[in-house]
Amino acid sequence: MSPVDTPVLPDRARVEEATRWLAGRVVRTPVLSAPAIDRLAGIRILLKAENLQTGGSYKTRGAMLAVGRLVAAGHTGVVAPSTGNHAVAVALAAQRHGLAATVVLPVDAPSTKVARARAAGARVVLAGTTLEERLTAARGLSSATGHPLVDAYDHPDVIAGQGSASRELIEQAERAGTPLDALVVPVGGGGGVAGACLAAAGRPIDVYGVEPVGCDSLARSLAAGRPTSVAPTATIADGLRPTCVGELAFAVACDRVQGVVRVDDDQIGEAFRLLLLELKVLAEPSGAAGLAGALRLAADPSALVPGPAPAGVPDHAGRPAGPADAWKRYRTVGVVLTGGNVDAELVARLVTQQLAGTVRAEGMAA
Amino acid sequence: MSPVDTPVLPDRARVEEATRWLAGRVVRTPVLSAPAIDRLAGIRILLKAENLQTGGSYKTRGAMLAVGRLVAAGHTGVVAPSTGNHAVAVALAAQRHGLAATVVLPVDAPSTKVARARAAGARVVLAGTTLEERLTAARGLSSATGHPLVDAYDHPDVIAGQGSASRELIEQAERAGTPLDALVVPVGGGGGVAGACLAAAGRPIDVYGVEPVGCDSLARSLAAGRPTSVAPTATIADGLRPTCVGELAFAVACDRVQGVVRVDDDQIGEAFRLLLLELKVLAEPSGAAGLAGALRLAADPSALVPGPAPAGVPDHAGRPAGPADAWKRYRTVGVVLTGGNVDAELVARLVTQQLAGTVRAEGMAA
Repeated sequence: MSPVDTPVLPDRARVEEATRWLAGRVVRTPVLSAPAIDRLAGIRILLKAENLQTGGSYKTRGAMLAVGRLVAAGHTGVVAPSTGNHAVAVALAAQRHGLAATVVLPVDAPSTKVARARAAGARVVLAGTTLEERLTAARGLSSATGHPLVDAYDHPDVIAGQGSASRELIEQAERAGTPLDALVVPVGGGGGVAGACLAAAGRPIDVYGVEPVGCDSLARSLAAGRPTSVAPTATIADGLRPTCVGELAFAVACDRVQGVVRVDDDQIGEAFRLLLLELKVLAEPSGAAGLAGALRLAADPSALVPGPAPAGVPDHAGRPAGPADAWKRYRTVGVVLTGGNVDAELVARLVTQQLAGTVRAEGMAA
Repeated sequence: MSPVDTPVLPDRARVEEATRWLAGRVVRTPVLSAPAIDRLAGIRILLKAENLQTGGSYKTRGAMLAVGRLVAAGHTGVVAPSTGNHAVAVALAAQRHGLAATVVLPVDAPSTKVARARAAGARVVLAGTTLEERLTAARGLSSATGHPLVDAYDHPDVIAGQGSASRELIEQAERAGTPLDALVVPVGGGGGVAGACLAAAGRPIDVYGVEPVGCDSLARSLAAGRPTSVAPTATIADGLRPTCVGELAFAVACDRVQGVVRVDDDQIGEAFRLLLLELKVLAEPSGAAGLAGALRLAADPSALVPGPAPAGVPDHAGRPAGPADAWKRYRTVGVVLTGGNVDAELVARLVTQQLAGTVRAEGMAA
């Protein structure tokens, strides 16, 4: 790749700029907490409720930024591959600016995400189940229409835009007198965790990624030192199933992220129910994964698959701390609750699983 | 009743004072909206998310105020009858101040409300199913312990405290550049709607109450000109089942409220699902009733059971408008989403009802 083709890595200043530009253009979502969740974690957990964002996810941030730039450059349309939320976000941003949007989703995307993209006026194309199938279709549509492709992860505006959610959370926590010691973000293609790393840069805030078991491309990429694909296994976290983290996202996050924790569907389901019944908000499983990861690390910091970055909170002698020491010292951890677009069927199933669990537990106690 | 025994009617100044006193002591809950809800209503609907309040309902406001006053007067305990949320709220307020709390709930109260009151350290007494049974038990406990009784509705601090939620909503809507034309509040014992009337006093904001079909004590009381009991029928809105509106609440609301709209369980269930799947928050059915009422009035203003107060938005000739004219002129309507404490079983049932409905509709279309 020639230097001309190398995209400029987004930096901290770009996240700051994105945060300022998006103020008033997207919802400044509230930061929520629940005593029951804090008790369970043993520390204060602040949740940035991006499920309450326009379009139901934080993807609206990056999409607004990227589409705004296309409009300024005179484009009349946009093409976007997505597991769902980026498609909804690009469709809404394009609708606001009068651009034609074509979005490419997997055939097994949640119906609510497909319906929301269509409701925002986008042309919806369903293509296979893998990232590669979506990208191939999207590239073909981009060539055929002449409309630029805005990737769901590997795009500087998308990284900076998603980073603005973390940046707002950092500021809101500071203002409340409970500054963050760490930030936990679910990882699909890595745009959100890369943005979180940039938002936290220069501050004593450690950043952690969360991946579903079997969809741990970032964990494997950190170990290999380069973007490494996986064959994603089934998970209820439909937004966290890309085959591989983005090159740009990995380049930003690889030496800044503390590491990754893996969570299974039971842990995601438990976090979903805590968010629903204690915090009183609806998260999609991909959004609940962040809380699942934070609870797992709070209970057992050794569950971390570490990255190359040292923990940002040194011990009393000034030595870099291991994950166990770091988590012992944290008082406040921020979690980006990335989205809330979930089919009613899955809501019913996840709530019912708890009921079944309760009945089982009562049966055992009797 | 001698003048000495007559409680002073809370007024607008008392709600303003309560709002100031509660700032920083309770959560300033966000005001949320969803395009899908606005489209359905045909107007802008702003929802004050008091389900995100400490204790999961706006009852925390009145309880904090009332218990704070008891502490200042040197009391060491408090007794509170409640369908559930007032009990949770008094338990939390008492816990914060180190008071002993005894709360009296019906035997069929949602288990999450009983569990939350217990978790906050309250002694929980279950007494019958009616308001009278709870009041009798609470009065007995108050005599036996010497601890004052704080009623769930008919108490000036409770009315002023609940009114502070409406007062904040009015201010938040003004700040956002979308001032309220009307305010819609669910009615149990009438504390919330009385508080809303005081919060809106002196402003061109009409106030409406919402009652479940068969639990329409305020509607009947407005018609009779005095507090009138009903034999409450079964409803999923467990917080809106008191036999009669409070005397104090009725005295405040009777000549200020525009009237009442009745909603059935299907309409409450539909509002519950809209709040869950579109707004992404969990409301309890009693909390969702406010939105159900606003949607019903927006669709058919003649569903209103009018009170004696003229609509606050006169027509172009300055004549007081009827409800149909008033609703045609509204641009922004505020709804207090009063609480979110709901058992998981009911969440599963309400979400599943929608699925059953979808399947039926699809079957008919095929």
